[in-house]
Amino acid sequence: MRWRPSLGGSVLLAHGAGGRETGELLQHMLLSKLAESMKRALGGYGTDVLDDGATIPLPDGRHLVLSVDSYTVNPIFFPGGDIGKLAATGSINDIAMMGARPVALMDSIVVEEGFPLEDLEKIMDSMLAVLREEGVALIGGDLKVMPQGQLDKIVITTVGIGVAERPIVDVGLRPGDKIIVTGPVGEHGATIMALQHGIGAEAEGLQSDCRPLTGLMLPLVERYGEHIHAAQDPTRGGLAMALNDWASKTGTVVVVDEKRVPLREPVRAYSEMLGIDPLSLACEGVALLGVAPESAEEVLEYVRTLGFQDAEIIGEVYKGERHKGVVLLRTRTGGLRILEPPSGELVPRIC
Amino acid sequence: MRWRPSLGGSVLLAHGAGGRETGELLQHMLLSKLAESMKRALGGYGTDVLDDGATIPLPDGRHLVLSVDSYTVNPIFFPGGDIGKLAATGSINDIAMMGARPVALMDSIVVEEGFPLEDLEKIMDSMLAVLREEGVALIGGDLKVMPQGQLDKIVITTVGIGVAERPIVDVGLRPGDKIIVTGPVGEHGATIMALQHGIGAEAEGLQSDCRPLTGLMLPLVERYGEHIHAAQDPTRGGLAMALNDWASKTGTVVVVDEKRVPLREPVRAYSEMLGIDPLSLACEGVALLGVAPESAEEVLEYVRTLGFQDAEIIGEVYKGERHKGVVLLRTRTGGLRILEPPSGELVPRIC
Repeated sequence: MRWRPSLGGSVLLAHGAGGRETGELLQHMLLSKLAESMKRALGGYGTDVLDDGATIPLPDGRHLVLSVDSYTVNPIFFPGGDIGKLAATGSINDIAMMGARPVALMDSIVVEEGFPLEDLEKIMDSMLAVLREEGVALIGGDLKVMPQGQLDKIVITTVGIGVAERPIVDVGLRPGDKIIVTGPVGEHGATIMALQHGIGAEAEGLQSDCRPLTGLMLPLVERYGEHIHAAQDPTRGGLAMALNDWASKTGTVVVVDEKRVPLREPVRAYSEMLGIDPLSLACEGVALLGVAPESAEEVLEYVRTLGFQDAEIIGEVYKGERHKGVVLLRTRTGGLRILEPPSGELVPRIC
Repeated sequence: MRWRPSLGGSVLLAHGAGGRETGELLQHMLLSKLAESMKRALGGYGTDVLDDGATIPLPDGRHLVLSVDSYTVNPIFFPGGDIGKLAATGSINDIAMMGARPVALMDSIVVEEGFPLEDLEKIMDSMLAVLREEGVALIGGDLKVMPQGQLDKIVITTVGIGVAERPIVDVGLRPGDKIIVTGPVGEHGATIMALQHGIGAEAEGLQSDCRPLTGLMLPLVERYGEHIHAAQDPTRGGLAMALNDWASKTGTVVVVDEKRVPLREPVRAYSEMLGIDPLSLACEGVALLGVAPESAEEVLEYVRTLGFQDAEIIGEVYKGERHKGVVLLRTRTGGLRILEPPSGELVPRIC
């Protein structure tokens, strides 16, 4: 028996949810089989930090930052964007969150035979609009067609390429650090989920927050680089996933104050209706930051001046003693509960 | 009416065949909309050469070489390899053919819910085996799962990353150059096609030639760099596609001697049976080289010592006068005919 029971015999939706099951699968199938020398190229950061991003040191001391992601979002058009905008934005954000300036993108599109060319052009136009606005070059790509019925519409893989003076690759969260979130959470996840449930997202006031975070991250890193101990855009699995990841990597305890987490009413109402924790829903235009305590207020003010008026300090980092690597939520009613990383069957094709 | 009639209203298999239709689609939807500044990053080569590969200059004069490709091959296991081996090999070859040493790979896997984990592990093992043998690091990746019925099994996208002293990016073919092909053609394409037609490829003696070309290209570029005017691995569309691409980019006429093109009997017999030109069938372990005439014989001998004993000089380049940018085939019977680039509906999911 090669498989641990929790892995089962076949691929589950949960394996693609970006949570515990994804980690287990990749650990078992890939990471445990990689020699140290196969985890990084030319001395950069690679799979040793288990991520979709990597760095390669340049001869002048800067770093090339790379990321890869496949986008399968369903539906492909949604309030606030489409799969093309999401694919370009997502890879740009991966690069920006590593403290790098995005300079180029490559894309690989797999599309179903019979897909309307007009829709394909709309999708490509959305992708190009993001690149144009961000000054990012499209330097290469691939296009494959699968026969009708073998792929549901379209999958886009994008490769983000950026340059960083000093990339943010390790989670350097320390006890005392403040946690800042730069905008209302769960907007993208709630929108896609509502559409998948046949609810008219727009009528409910839901809209994806999909937008590039370069305008936030580049000035922030330049001005407060050494004070930013951790940075991530909480996509799949939302805030709950990202914070658990940080806590477990650093052996700290993160305490989050639920009532300080920015949350728009439509997302709150929709989550309550479906019994879903909005902290587990994907964001596509929000940054999560771990900031040195002495500069947290100043960073918060600066983030707000950059167009992220809803930014808030939502929590704090403690030294892990009896408990290590956990996230605690101080609820609206004043209680304290463990905020688990989302696991099991979440929404498929959320991004 | 936004669409030219030849584009039609929806995506055709031909749009993904890598031929004329692919070029038209990409030209219309992407390339014509890219400002010059959006075609290359940091002064490297990008979409200005319409390719899956690109380069980024490094501060020390070397170049980083990048490529991206999605693999959809069906069946996923075949004599000579599987989709994992193909995905790793294909991207390594893209990098090697640009004269670069592959140093790293990133992968993004999209897999269907219910796919056997045992098969997924086999595929990943094949990918890792190639990387291990080639000394290439796996520095990042992504995994997504699509609900059952929304994707036929698995699609793998790989990003190749290499470093070149002097990358081969432009087709520098000149009149007088000799064309060398390093092994028997059409092996991969014939194998996959036979399997798709329900013919037991192994029984027919068919086997994919899928293998890394670093052992060929790295020593060759080091020893004969300036004599190699063009290099390509003729995958989708085979020799016919690659040679037409070269001829049209340089406005030359390429004349190929059919009887000198290495072709194994099973591929010849199978192609004849189905009425397919083996010169249009994909290779996955063969290089096509355009070499300066004075060193062609010497290069050929050297290529043979590198383990490519079946290599042959198959043709020559002429100045285009009345005809420009065409490929002529001197047939076995002594006639001369135009070798068209493959167009229309070829085999889907060949790589």
